[in-house]
Amino acid sequence: MSPLVIAVDAMGGDHAPGVLVEGAAIARERFPQVRFLFFGDEAKIAPLVKGQALLSDCAEIVHTATAISADEKPGVAMRRGKGTSMWLACEAVRDGTAQAAVSAGNTGALMAIAMFLLRTSPAINRPAIASFVPTMRGESVMLDLGANVGCDERNLVEFAFMGAAFARASLGLPKPRVALLNIGTEDLKGNEAVRGAAQLLRDTPDLPFEFTGFIEGNGIAQGQVDVIVSDGFAGNIALKTQEGTARLVSAYLAATFRRSIWSKLGYLLARPALQALRERLDPNRYNGGAFLGLNGLVVKSHGGTNAVGFAAAIGIAADLALSGFVTRILEDLKRVAPADSIGGEAPGAVEQEVAEKS
Amino acid sequence: MSPLVIAVDAMGGDHAPGVLVEGAAIARERFPQVRFLFFGDEAKIAPLVKGQALLSDCAEIVHTATAISADEKPGVAMRRGKGTSMWLACEAVRDGTAQAAVSAGNTGALMAIAMFLLRTSPAINRPAIASFVPTMRGESVMLDLGANVGCDERNLVEFAFMGAAFARASLGLPKPRVALLNIGTEDLKGNEAVRGAAQLLRDTPDLPFEFTGFIEGNGIAQGQVDVIVSDGFAGNIALKTQEGTARLVSAYLAATFRRSIWSKLGYLLARPALQALRERLDPNRYNGGAFLGLNGLVVKSHGGTNAVGFAAAIGIAADLALSGFVTRILEDLKRVAPADSIGGEAPGAVEQEVAEKS
Repeated sequence: MSPLVIAVDAMGGDHAPGVLVEGAAIARERFPQVRFLFFGDEAKIAPLVKGQALLSDCAEIVHTATAISADEKPGVAMRRGKGTSMWLACEAVRDGTAQAAVSAGNTGALMAIAMFLLRTSPAINRPAIASFVPTMRGESVMLDLGANVGCDERNLVEFAFMGAAFARASLGLPKPRVALLNIGTEDLKGNEAVRGAAQLLRDTPDLPFEFTGFIEGNGIAQGQVDVIVSDGFAGNIALKTQEGTARLVSAYLAATFRRSIWSKLGYLLARPALQALRERLDPNRYNGGAFLGLNGLVVKSHGGTNAVGFAAAIGIAADLALSGFVTRILEDLKRVAPADSIGGEAPGAVEQEVAEKS
Repeated sequence: MSPLVIAVDAMGGDHAPGVLVEGAAIARERFPQVRFLFFGDEAKIAPLVKGQALLSDCAEIVHTATAISADEKPGVAMRRGKGTSMWLACEAVRDGTAQAAVSAGNTGALMAIAMFLLRTSPAINRPAIASFVPTMRGESVMLDLGANVGCDERNLVEFAFMGAAFARASLGLPKPRVALLNIGTEDLKGNEAVRGAAQLLRDTPDLPFEFTGFIEGNGIAQGQVDVIVSDGFAGNIALKTQEGTARLVSAYLAATFRRSIWSKLGYLLARPALQALRERLDPNRYNGGAFLGLNGLVVKSHGGTNAVGFAAAIGIAADLALSGFVTRILEDLKRVAPADSIGGEAPGAVEQEVAEKS
């Protein structure tokens, strides 16, 4: 069995380290072979680990007293973050001590540190953030969710390959259906990048996924495809609009049941079923944004996650690690023309972008 | 009282002319001074108008036997559309016979014909499509919803002014709160266009609205602002993602109530309240996309609308017409620097764009 060591930034997020350790124990049930490296304050973490029977034989604590704060600018975090729990977790991935890192800390800082330590994969021009979104059929993978505000056709094609590899690894789909997010489904709709990416995908032989063309915003929740590919601007807006709308409808619904004595009684009778609905829409179920396209795996959890949500983020990291995502994507992308555009970004470009964000 | 004549393309949409005539009668209740010009097949329309007591003294039919089909390409519609019901409705606005046109027909064709006949306003570089979206507080105005796939900072600033004028006219807000849709709320987030537009708005004195900065996707449904400004790519995706998510949650909810005998009974008790929820989320309530930035007003209704939805689209047209939108926006935009960038697009550019879409 391949090794599965997950590095946990045990100081990141609103409820660290309590829910993080608890989440690791929940994840252990799904991945009996997993080992955890917890980076953080040993005095706080050790008693929590001791309290979890499931972690008794698979957890190691690497002590550090420093952490990246929630409001640290990415550039500052990158320059001064050495030795923090987040930094050490990413460093463990770089050094091969762990197969993936998971953090509920500051997103910008995590992206900056992960890019600095792990660098972009030689097959990828721009990394992307991918996550699950709820749909009528279960869930789909969506990317990019904000790592890149502007993308060209080549970037979108790389995202398609990465998203498909994510769906294979995490949803167990041998040939995921992949579509490009657009404002219409006809060939001539959209900007140059999406039209060019569609052409490039149609021209690529033996795709390791089924390319179905364009998908509109309303197709996401319908579950029309398994992977939705977009630039980080539109993707981030679609994801957050979906979250906001689900909350809006839930709020309307709650108000609806308060309207009359009959509706209140109806609520009482339907309560167990409504609880199941709430669980189905629970954002913790879809927690975990994977940074794809680096020479190593890093997964970002929501800062306010509960233990179940943190276990979901660990599950994404474990699924990707076990699938051999990082080497597989190198292989997959060899089939895309033109070959001469394959090549990692110069480190200078990565640093410049991180500096801009700081 | 200012004249209020609405030109109706009575041949456009899935249920023309029946629901359109019925919708006009519903709209008459809100606008007693309105007069309608119905363009279409007189033999079909006349009996329908006769059947509506509210239209007995305010409807005129202009006969034409030809209509633009639902699948006509925009360029073809523009070249061969002369004399069709859609064309004549827009021509009535150009000639001053009507103050606004409303159509439930082919969107691309309507945009092409409207741009060709009405031309872009001398204060506006690019027209935009605006519509209502449901929020926790009621509704907000969102634009652009797909007229422009890429926008520069100047375009976004113009959209902000147009959206604010829309919100004043239709929601009766003296000083609407306006925000730019972005992937974060910090100054450095997003692409050049949104950052530049934010700067330009902050530098403009005496804005006729309150500019609140950036809004994220989840802020739309929260009702954080009255007007959400975006390029047409992200805006279209946000709008359609919201529609799709609302349908997803409704489908989950329906399944929830079928789970057990108790939940079925709960549904029966809460049914009147749930019916009110359904009405609140009914897309017909938010029907009507206004084409803003032309030398005249045109409103697009969903093709599959019912009569109440078509009345909503007429209501938008009437509110905008009564507010003097077209001249007001010329005045408003005079305060934006730099003055030398103010100027309508050359007719050649409009035609080129329409040709590209065909």
